[in-house]
Amino acid sequence: MIRVAVDAMGGDYAPEEIIAGAVDAVKENKEIKVLLVGQEQVVREKLSGFTYDKNQITVVHASEVIATEEPPVNAIRKKKDSSIVVGMNLVKNKEADAFVSAGSSGAILVGGQVIVGRIKGVERPPLAPLIPTETGVSLLIDCGANVDARPSHLVQFARMGSIYMEHVMNINRPRVAIVNIGAEEEKGNALVKETFPLLKACKDIHFIGSIEAREIPHGAADVIVCEAFVGNVILKLYEGVGATLISKVKTGMMADLRSKIGALLVKPALKDTLKSFDASRYGGAPLLGLNGLVVKTHGNSKANEVKNSIIQCLTFQKQGINEKIKESLAKASQKE
Amino acid sequence: MIRVAVDAMGGDYAPEEIIAGAVDAVKENKEIKVLLVGQEQVVREKLSGFTYDKNQITVVHASEVIATEEPPVNAIRKKKDSSIVVGMNLVKNKEADAFVSAGSSGAILVGGQVIVGRIKGVERPPLAPLIPTETGVSLLIDCGANVDARPSHLVQFARMGSIYMEHVMNINRPRVAIVNIGAEEEKGNALVKETFPLLKACKDIHFIGSIEAREIPHGAADVIVCEAFVGNVILKLYEGVGATLISKVKTGMMADLRSKIGALLVKPALKDTLKSFDASRYGGAPLLGLNGLVVKTHGNSKANEVKNSIIQCLTFQKQGINEKIKESLAKASQKE
Repeated sequence: MIRVAVDAMGGDYAPEEIIAGAVDAVKENKEIKVLLVGQEQVVREKLSGFTYDKNQITVVHASEVIATEEPPVNAIRKKKDSSIVVGMNLVKNKEADAFVSAGSSGAILVGGQVIVGRIKGVERPPLAPLIPTETGVSLLIDCGANVDARPSHLVQFARMGSIYMEHVMNINRPRVAIVNIGAEEEKGNALVKETFPLLKACKDIHFIGSIEAREIPHGAADVIVCEAFVGNVILKLYEGVGATLISKVKTGMMADLRSKIGALLVKPALKDTLKSFDASRYGGAPLLGLNGLVVKTHGNSKANEVKNSIIQCLTFQKQGINEKIKESLAKASQKE
Repeated sequence: MIRVAVDAMGGDYAPEEIIAGAVDAVKENKEIKVLLVGQEQVVREKLSGFTYDKNQITVVHASEVIATEEPPVNAIRKKKDSSIVVGMNLVKNKEADAFVSAGSSGAILVGGQVIVGRIKGVERPPLAPLIPTETGVSLLIDCGANVDARPSHLVQFARMGSIYMEHVMNINRPRVAIVNIGAEEEKGNALVKETFPLLKACKDIHFIGSIEAREIPHGAADVIVCEAFVGNVILKLYEGVGATLISKVKTGMMADLRSKIGALLVKPALKDTLKSFDASRYGGAPLLGLNGLVVKTHGNSKANEVKNSIIQCLTFQKQGINEKIKESLAKASQKE
């Protein structure tokens, strides 16, 4: 059994799609209990339209909502009765095992560290979304808001990312690579040059060296290590180039009558292919290294992504990811 | 009249496509004189297959070739008779006005600084490729090999990029933005935070603030300022995501008979659309701020891209870009 607190008020399609996703999750899996956090009256009203096992969903009232554009540190400090703060406190007080939100990334990152707190030994909790590749998915770690990382942070990211990909995504000996501007060890900025030999020396991860950004979409590594500024650029450019190209393809297909007829014929097959390259369908991005699980789902998540993010929490808990992270960091610090 | 030294030996399709591109360039424009630098016998043999005005192409012998994988500093130092070193010396000695190469990026960057040399006042010469967007092209500055830049470097990049886009690409008041992980001034890493107010204070550029990577493909800015590590990641991911998506679209279209028929119908229109999003067709990336013009064209350039890169040099010279850069930096340093 897992208890997942879900932010009913966060995201572009809140509360409707969030609530629908929560209902779908409990219907799909009897081991999940959802604590829907938000303005009680609104949430109850929307919930009343669904049929589901009443034992699997509880509503927890939170009167306030943190907007995406609010400065995060301030929002977390001032809005004590917001769905994000209330949801995170449920995790902190062990009333919930995980918290899922499609709301303000900044507030989730700050709240995760300030309210839920770090696992002992974790220097910096990374946000690690899955990104689609030609062959499957890769974990991009870190895409959070803590920029200007140190080499030791990146080494921890590599360890935590490996554990996640191995035990949540079932990838045997995940290949770990560091984002660089060339394949050779001597290439890169100061951070990469310092981190490279440290990763090479880690016996507990399968480090395959540098990865150039061009190789990321080909699926050349399972865990892609970088500091948050670079990770953020990669994640957002992925979305931007993808969206632009797809819109170009659509425009191209509407160019003349001949193409329009062709478009009708290719559409079904093409839709499936492009869907497999849509980052949002891979559930949420975990904020790793916290005393409890915090998952950020894409701001434009609909019911399906919310459901996937909730179900993902179950695997995370069953596999004891946090325990594995603790062990791994303890072993590493013993060696030092 | 402009004299362009062209590296006949550099690039995936050298010397055939390079020579073909040089011939096309002189045929298209009578004001261009090409100095084809490379192994004389090989070059002359390939050239003999073309008809062109013999006054417009001269062959300059260079016995050595720098391979892409050679460590650049060493290659420039040791291979004094390589096409890159010989070509750059032609620019240094004012026997050529520009040098175009599809060869080793590293060697071109090193050679540009060491042999051709920087304009007085230029702290670091940036490599600035044009990237395709939904609405046209943007200049991505810097994508070179000099990582760990300082704020003052980025300010110079913004100035040089503005001059280039205004006078070579004919964009009135080019919009300059700095790559960041959020739109607000207080966001970013230490470098961006320090650079932001400096750019804001520049009266001679049209600074529009931060740009998130997601907005780059939409054409939200004309000059995209970043340090080389980030620029490199952006450039290569652009290529990588584009290539992967296009291959996905192709596979999707071949999924079944229905789609195959549709594909035949949409193909012509789609080809044009996707071509407009192909980075390689926009000629070469100038290495700005040098005593002479050095242009790096894509390693996989064919005749058409080589021709475009050569013709681009003419606009660069006619517009007196280097003189404008000198004036702009002199004015800026007076103010300080």
